[in-house]
Amino acid sequence: MITLASDFGTPYPAAMKGVLLRRTDARLVDVGHDFPRHDVRTAAFWLRETLPYFPPATHLVVVDPGVGTDRAAIAIRARDHTLVGPDNGVLLPAARRLAGDGALEISVVDEEALEPVVPAGETAPDPGEGPKSNTFHGRDVFAPTAAAVHESDGLDSLSLLTPTTDPVDLELPTATLEDGRAVGEVLVVDDFGNAITNVPGEFLKARERVVANGEPVPVGDTFEAVPAGERLATVGSHGYVELDVNRGRGEAAFDLAVGDRVVLESAD
Amino acid sequence: MITLASDFGTPYPAAMKGVLLRRTDARLVDVGHDFPRHDVRTAAFWLRETLPYFPPATHLVVVDPGVGTDRAAIAIRARDHTLVGPDNGVLLPAARRLAGDGALEISVVDEEALEPVVPAGETAPDPGEGPKSNTFHGRDVFAPTAAAVHESDGLDSLSLLTPTTDPVDLELPTATLEDGRAVGEVLVVDDFGNAITNVPGEFLKARERVVANGEPVPVGDTFEAVPAGERLATVGSHGYVELDVNRGRGEAAFDLAVGDRVVLESAD
Amino acid sequence: MITLASDFGTPYPAAMKGVLLRRTDARLVDVGHDFPRHDVRTAAFWLRETLPYFPPATHLVVVDPGVGTDRAAIAIRARDHTLVGPDNGVLLPAARRLAGDGALEISVVDEEALEPVVPAGETAPDPGEGPKSNTFHGRDVFAPTAAAVHESDGLDSLSLLTPTTDPVDLELPTATLEDGRAVGEVLVVDDFGNAITNVPGEFLKARERVVANGEPVPVGDTFEAVPAGERLATVGSHGYVELDVNRGRGEAAFDLAVGDRVVLESAD
Repeated sequence: MITLASDFGTPYPAAMKGVLLRRTDARLVDVGHDFPRHDVRTAAFWLRETLPYFPPATHLVVVDPGVGTDRAAIAIRARDHTLVGPDNGVLLPAARRLAGDGALEISVVDEEALEPVVPAGETAPDPGEGPKSNTFHGRDVFAPTAAAVHESDGLDSLSLLTPTTDPVDLELPTATLEDGRAVGEVLVVDDFGNAITNVPGEFLKARERVVANGEPVPVGDTFEAVPAGERLATVGSHGYVELDVNRGRGEAAFDLAVGDRVVLESAD
Repeated sequence: MITLASDFGTPYPAAMKGVLLRRTDARLVDVGHDFPRHDVRTAAFWLRETLPYFPPATHLVVVDPGVGTDRAAIAIRARDHTLVGPDNGVLLPAARRLAGDGALEISVVDEEALEPVVPAGETAPDPGEGPKSNTFHGRDVFAPTAAAVHESDGLDSLSLLTPTTDPVDLELPTATLEDGRAVGEVLVVDDFGNAITNVPGEFLKARERVVANGEPVPVGDTFEAVPAGERLATVGSHGYVELDVNRGRGEAAFDLAVGDRVVLESAD
Repeated sequence: MITLASDFGTPYPAAMKGVLLRRTDARLVDVGHDFPRHDVRTAAFWLRETLPYFPPATHLVVVDPGVGTDRAAIAIRARDHTLVGPDNGVLLPAARRLAGDGALEISVVDEEALEPVVPAGETAPDPGEGPKSNTFHGRDVFAPTAAAVHESDGLDSLSLLTPTTDPVDLELPTATLEDGRAVGEVLVVDDFGNAITNVPGEFLKARERVVANGEPVPVGDTFEAVPAGERLATVGSHGYVELDVNRGRGEAAFDLAVGDRVVLESAD
């Protein structure tokens, strides 16, 4: 199984799928291709929250503002999952969660060693004269790598991979909790408009109300704990405090965007 | 085969797919994840118009504004199709159409009897201490139920299902026809902007013009029956009267939204 | 394998998939269903740039403003690929590229010879009384044709196909190059906002700057060749000159839309 995630919209993911399906019979599953453009951190969050629900798979990820520069392509083995993508940190939070208490094996891809991508109706290029673009490594580098990884007997067997110990890292920010006060930020806004913070859900435990950025808000176990159109704080499916509106958009009602500071305080 | 329909956007459907694919090798097919948020009636319409074109399958549906409340999860057997989703009426119009003149078997899901969803890198919870969220039953309840249903030899064999005769029902409204006059409403607006009413297409038979909410409109067999940008009434692919604009958006030109009243009269 | 491309949005493609899956076990792969509505030329461009990356397949394409009129349904054999869609030119640029120096075999579909599409819960119509709509040939004509083509031993064996030598053609416009000056146009704007012209990428070779519609612009090998938010000209993954903004939208910064004239001149 190969999952695909990108910020490509339509129809670039299809070219990646075509390349994959010339080289493997794997099942392909889209994680999503509507991630915010060039936003490595948001993609890293969603991958960390989504990939652990999959069975063992190869995960192809392309959120890659540095395409065509000297940033490397990497592959990460995390227990029985393998992630393939740009060396910009986007894979690391998901890889660490997939590995649990296991170690990560990280390799750099030798792009010159990949079998060239040749569209139908054209002839293969001479060695070293590949048609690799500078703007679409999803098609020309990452899909070929994912296919090779998926078809291999293990990363060790692939001569195109070289171990590295120095990938670009990315840590999602954590909230600070002290004296009944949490200081965090909005990690992402989901498609429903829920403003998902990095404050652990336990902060809401046994509370009926909370003060969010200075304003009192009811705490609800479910969206329907408040009337339609009303604001609430709840624990989202990722385990974090979300600032929501029942049947509405929390990010608008709370006037919050990704990265905005969120201070939660006791309402007592 | 398992079909998936929701109002989730991206990337929550991927978490459902991951859960499914840990438990079944079934083919997964998206019906759509862009249904209008929290709009049970619109989803019910599209499911009724789309699912009957599929071969026998399990249909997983999550348009669920009551997530986390005491609304039940249900499964419905309709001939050789099975539908799984929240007990809010969203499944009923499709189930009735799939059953034809057959009966429906409806069951309530015992959510506590489901195998818990445990993400990779974490250990399974103690019995009764499951990680079930209050805000994402697509992942934690409906996907596990759909997988169990799909892998079973029949709903009777599943101890997690208990027959019920009292589901929440939902009937799509019907138009009234009298003396060459039809009074109905806009059921949905499709992605092209076609305003799909609940007036049966036969109303347009043998007419060249019709009066729609007081204004005369040509009747066309095809969109191209009128010049680009012009309004027309036609019979849509669901068999209902649609108010459209050739190569444009009918809902804007007719100033109509879902639920708006539509009166069609003879133009003679 | 059957690929699907349309301007349908959601959920009409699912009805096509249902029809296909009643008739074939083929793998289904979406090329995209968000092509600009009724825009045959843009779809033709994307198909030409995407389909050649697939292995041999049947390609089902429905961008069809003339649905229900007397425009024919056609099938085109191009080497080991087959394309099915409306006879409006949308298939031709992709078919020619897929064929390379091979010939195209083009056939008209006898729509009356198709096995009727009968939704679950309904009985099959009498011969000649099929339920074919005038507004959704994707479901009622093209999907059945694609399934028949895919399941056949070759187009010759299908009695529902009749060879034609007179399809509606469509040629994407080409740029003129003379004396270090290129006059072309914007072919498409992609989801990133890159304005993809029809000027061959070689025009930028060995240039550090270029004058685009009167304004000097740096030439970059990669988006990151200029600071975030800055404009550049680069060679896109299709081999054409693109007018882009690093991490931004080129079409807005250059004030360009599809079809707009683009004049590129030497900056020396």
